[in-house]
Amino acid sequence: MIADSTPATLDQPNSETLGMLMHGLMTDLYPICRSITGDGVRQSLGLLQAQIPLTLHEVPTGTPVFDWTVPKEWNIRDAYVKNARGEKVIDFQQSNLHILNYSVPVNQCMSLTELKQHLYSLPDQPQSIPYKTAYYAESWGFCLTHERLLALAEGDYEVYIDSTLADGHLTYGELILPGTSEETILISCHCCHPSLCNDNLSGMVLSTYLAKTLIEQQAAQPRHYTYRFLFIPGTIGSITWLALHEEEARTIKHGLVVACVGDGSSLTYKKSRRGDAEIDRAVAHVLAQSNQPYAMVNFTPFGYDERQYCSPGFDLAVGSLSRTPHGRFPQYHTSEDNLSFVTAAALGDSLATYWAVLALLEQNHTYINLNPKGEPQLGRRGLYGAFGGKKDAKTSELAMLWILNFSDGQHSLLDIAERSGYSFQMLAEVARTLQSHGLLKEETR
Amino acid sequence: MIADSTPATLDQPNSETLGMLMHGLMTDLYPICRSITGDGVRQSLGLLQAQIPLTLHEVPTGTPVFDWTVPKEWNIRDAYVKNARGEKVIDFQQSNLHILNYSVPVNQCMSLTELKQHLYSLPDQPQSIPYKTAYYAESWGFCLTHERLLALAEGDYEVYIDSTLADGHLTYGELILPGTSEETILISCHCCHPSLCNDNLSGMVLSTYLAKTLIEQQAAQPRHYTYRFLFIPGTIGSITWLALHEEEARTIKHGLVVACVGDGSSLTYKKSRRGDAEIDRAVAHVLAQSNQPYAMVNFTPFGYDERQYCSPGFDLAVGSLSRTPHGRFPQYHTSEDNLSFVTAAALGDSLATYWAVLALLEQNHTYINLNPKGEPQLGRRGLYGAFGGKKDAKTSELAMLWILNFSDGQHSLLDIAERSGYSFQMLAEVARTLQSHGLLKEETR
Amino acid sequence: MIADSTPATLDQPNSETLGMLMHGLMTDLYPICRSITGDGVRQSLGLLQAQIPLTLHEVPTGTPVFDWTVPKEWNIRDAYVKNARGEKVIDFQQSNLHILNYSVPVNQCMSLTELKQHLYSLPDQPQSIPYKTAYYAESWGFCLTHERLLALAEGDYEVYIDSTLADGHLTYGELILPGTSEETILISCHCCHPSLCNDNLSGMVLSTYLAKTLIEQQAAQPRHYTYRFLFIPGTIGSITWLALHEEEARTIKHGLVVACVGDGSSLTYKKSRRGDAEIDRAVAHVLAQSNQPYAMVNFTPFGYDERQYCSPGFDLAVGSLSRTPHGRFPQYHTSEDNLSFVTAAALGDSLATYWAVLALLEQNHTYINLNPKGEPQLGRRGLYGAFGGKKDAKTSELAMLWILNFSDGQHSLLDIAERSGYSFQMLAEVARTLQSHGLLKEETR
Repeated sequence: MIADSTPATLDQPNSETLGMLMHGLMTDLYPICRSITGDGVRQSLGLLQAQIPLTLHEVPTGTPVFDWTVPKEWNIRDAYVKNARGEKVIDFQQSNLHILNYSVPVNQCMSLTELKQHLYSLPDQPQSIPYKTAYYAESWGFCLTHERLLALAEGDYEVYIDSTLADGHLTYGELILPGTSEETILISCHCCHPSLCNDNLSGMVLSTYLAKTLIEQQAAQPRHYTYRFLFIPGTIGSITWLALHEEEARTIKHGLVVACVGDGSSLTYKKSRRGDAEIDRAVAHVLAQSNQPYAMVNFTPFGYDERQYCSPGFDLAVGSLSRTPHGRFPQYHTSEDNLSFVTAAALGDSLATYWAVLALLEQNHTYINLNPKGEPQLGRRGLYGAFGGKKDAKTSELAMLWILNFSDGQHSLLDIAERSGYSFQMLAEVARTLQSHGLLKEETR
Repeated sequence: MIADSTPATLDQPNSETLGMLMHGLMTDLYPICRSITGDGVRQSLGLLQAQIPLTLHEVPTGTPVFDWTVPKEWNIRDAYVKNARGEKVIDFQQSNLHILNYSVPVNQCMSLTELKQHLYSLPDQPQSIPYKTAYYAESWGFCLTHERLLALAEGDYEVYIDSTLADGHLTYGELILPGTSEETILISCHCCHPSLCNDNLSGMVLSTYLAKTLIEQQAAQPRHYTYRFLFIPGTIGSITWLALHEEEARTIKHGLVVACVGDGSSLTYKKSRRGDAEIDRAVAHVLAQSNQPYAMVNFTPFGYDERQYCSPGFDLAVGSLSRTPHGRFPQYHTSEDNLSFVTAAALGDSLATYWAVLALLEQNHTYINLNPKGEPQLGRRGLYGAFGGKKDAKTSELAMLWILNFSDGQHSLLDIAERSGYSFQMLAEVARTLQSHGLLKEETR
Repeated sequence: MIADSTPATLDQPNSETLGMLMHGLMTDLYPICRSITGDGVRQSLGLLQAQIPLTLHEVPTGTPVFDWTVPKEWNIRDAYVKNARGEKVIDFQQSNLHILNYSVPVNQCMSLTELKQHLYSLPDQPQSIPYKTAYYAESWGFCLTHERLLALAEGDYEVYIDSTLADGHLTYGELILPGTSEETILISCHCCHPSLCNDNLSGMVLSTYLAKTLIEQQAAQPRHYTYRFLFIPGTIGSITWLALHEEEARTIKHGLVVACVGDGSSLTYKKSRRGDAEIDRAVAHVLAQSNQPYAMVNFTPFGYDERQYCSPGFDLAVGSLSRTPHGRFPQYHTSEDNLSFVTAAALGDSLATYWAVLALLEQNHTYINLNPKGEPQLGRRGLYGAFGGKKDAKTSELAMLWILNFSDGQHSLLDIAERSGYSFQMLAEVARTLQSHGLLKEETR
């Protein structure tokens, strides 16, 4: 569309191909039993290291992190319940959701009545195994379908859990991609859920491929922002990272918590606590320009790790971009949140949207019109008709006038996009053309 | 609902019982002929002194009060019009509305034609006696139903008004209930209307019982605010009080003018001149939470004494909470605004609403989250599940997160109620629980 | 309506009569061939000098004006195209729209094919001659109806254009009407279009009669504002004036660009770049009070000379009040924008609206209530009932209370009009009455 513009800062990736690659990576991650600590997290992050140069950090049990303490490390090898005939009626090897996450070791016989006090099912969704945790309770339990629960006969049961809960470490993954500025864009996802796809293998694979694509484009296109990717256990992970990196946290200028990005519904953006931060307006613009349905919701102090990034002592400009949000889909935290609930197409579309947001932030300059008194004479510079076909040309000419009129040092390109109703991307291209003709300069940011 | 909270600052009174007591007091006040000065006011305030320790103040005729002067005192003993047969065709003893309020003494005979120049009726409401005044005109007249007017036969009439208009005093009642702060909540009602119930015996009895209930609860629950109750003649009374108490007026932080609080319609709040004062937002929240229809209207410089409190030289945060507002009901300023137009139920409901507003103001602290970085660990403090039944418990847990996230010194509880959509009262209880666990402190106000 | 008020600052003119006079002046201007320079402009402004004491300024070709240069002067005496039989098939003498404005001289024979590269028509409006320009291109051409174009037979044609494009001047007209303040109201219209009535002979005649009426009323009613009228060629004219008068431009407090004010549609106001300037609010109030349909549109950096006045280096409070805006009527820039498209009634209505806006600005005082504590006693000053009939009287009494309550030095009369919903004009009359009773004083502006 533009004859003589400099290249766009970020090239839009092929989201269809990436969607399939993400779904493939998710398939590899799916069987692993993750928790907020333990080898399942290490093994999962190890798979991601094959894609991106992730660094794994280990924080010892007992480390004080603000009002919390890093917990004991949990590992599990096997778990089952056998009936009187020696048949496994609940088997961790069939689904890691069967175990109450963080269950202590058990090896004993008990009656059905006694056993039932440790069983969890969903009467309303009788064919789904629920996902339950007991991180800080030192208890044990099994989760199973309600149908299976009802089928359990009276009699004695053998309960076996081969787990350990002991001093160890909390593990998280981190990747920093330096830009020309120390100002940072944070991409954070939780990596603590076992075999659950939308929540949050989808977030892990999207974050991985977002990083991978940024790395691939890094040489050709130096970037303004530093990017920091965090793969952390929910709540305790973000609290731990914030406690150990207060100073780095202050360099985060924009951030997104990545979760539930693989289901088939339209996108929902949950704003940062500030509500009108640049990240909030950037996502709003990208979604509005997408010509697809979407929703914007205000910040609430519950959900995922945006709770911690937006706690009043930090109040970072961090929002969360999801498809169906946290807890709003019936498959949420059940065995139905599986590999067929998440699609390659949805993952690809989510990635493309994240990418468009990053592209916007990178290019959101405040320009200065170097001829602010009256309009500059565009005709003698060949700028009328410089832009593609007839309809595009007219729009681009009006875009030139919008940019020149509002490039007074008070309006960023995003401000101008919001005021004019034009797409940011088109305005950014036109601005680079005007800049190449000496009509604009970028204000230092 | 709360296990370990400190008691709420104000206990909600039994509004049904109080409604009946208020209606009873109104019945006692009804027959008295009040005006802006005179013994009718003294007698009425005397009846209120049986309920609350009201102080009566007397301001001499001729006292300059801003642009006005305290007028002569008016008293009336009897008044009638007799026809040629000596029959009383208009009789003050039957209704004190029959006399044009502030009529000078008269004792003379005249033709019907001459008499008619002094008669006031309502052709559109032929069975109602209108209420008319002539405070500053030194004239006389009678008010009567239009039916009675039409029935007057030609002939001579004897007109007799046994009144005095002479130097004396303007009387008003005042009650101050000190709190720990000198910051004051003003409750003001006009007490100058004769036998008219909604306007404004309803305001007088509501103010009386509001004071009475505050006094009853004072020992158990010390209050932040000082309360100042004013029972004053309309316009000249508030101007007189303001002129003589400019300094005290500056301590009024919130105020309500009480009028027309006894009819059967829904509540209407007229905002203060400022429009977004804490009193305006407090009343809006209480009405919105009531699950009953209500209306909010912007300030206009006419109505009752809020005109004077909101004059530009004071601009106090004083609104007015009514049922049907000033002049909007057909019974307004007629003999139909009587004891059956005002109901005990409506008086009780109005009192409960006023009470809820005061309770909100008393509890509207700005708290400081003492663990502002990340969330505090509520589980180890037993705060998950600390609150009542299952549904309440979930709401209260989310309320904890709202309060913790926004208690950054910039948001009062009312701010948090508005932002979260939760009821102020529930948030206040949850905040006290968090405070008792050392998670919050109150900012000094 | 007011008994004792001082006279209104501006008397509403007879818009019906003025509408006819404006249409008459337009009829005289219509045949002249105008352009951005040349004798057509001088002749047109000469006709206006018979109405108002306009000063003509001449700026030499080559004068640098910001990013532009004053172009060569163009003059044309005759132009035609003859067919092989010597018949004039296109004749400048029939319509000056036939010539591509700024065509260089030509005298040659050519085939129809060659000629057609220089012909412009409108296939969608086959009976209209389009208006085309080539100010900075040094080319030539003819415009004609599409029907005529289709009727041209094969064969040779003689093309003759007797024009000159040479060093000379850019001519513009200026009229300054001094007020007591140096603060200026700018009225600007473009005068560069040939035989086109709505765009923009309508603007030229309205500006002329606005000035004429101000002059006629000047002696009786001294005005606060200085008025500056500009009759300039579009774009290059406003850029030239701004470049040569930067300091004077800074004294412009309010401004209107006058264009397309004669067609039969309702009024549209395009706001200044600031969006909430006093001129924007003044026009909005006048239009809202008109009880006729109207539209308000936000500033866009295209249209007429408001583009230049609102360029970021000036950002003047200049809007544009039109009937159908720029480019939105099918007759726009065609021979159908003629003397019958513009009506005397529409011109008169537009003038009355402009006049009402000026009257509002002149009277938009910020008053100070001299009795700000409580209300002043209006009754003893005879101010109740001072105003006309019963319904008017009640409204005027409430208007007194609005003005007194909000005349705190923070609210202009327009602020009070917006807040109360009352008409500015009525409030202004009431304010003068209050001022004459010593209750208000005007804040110096």
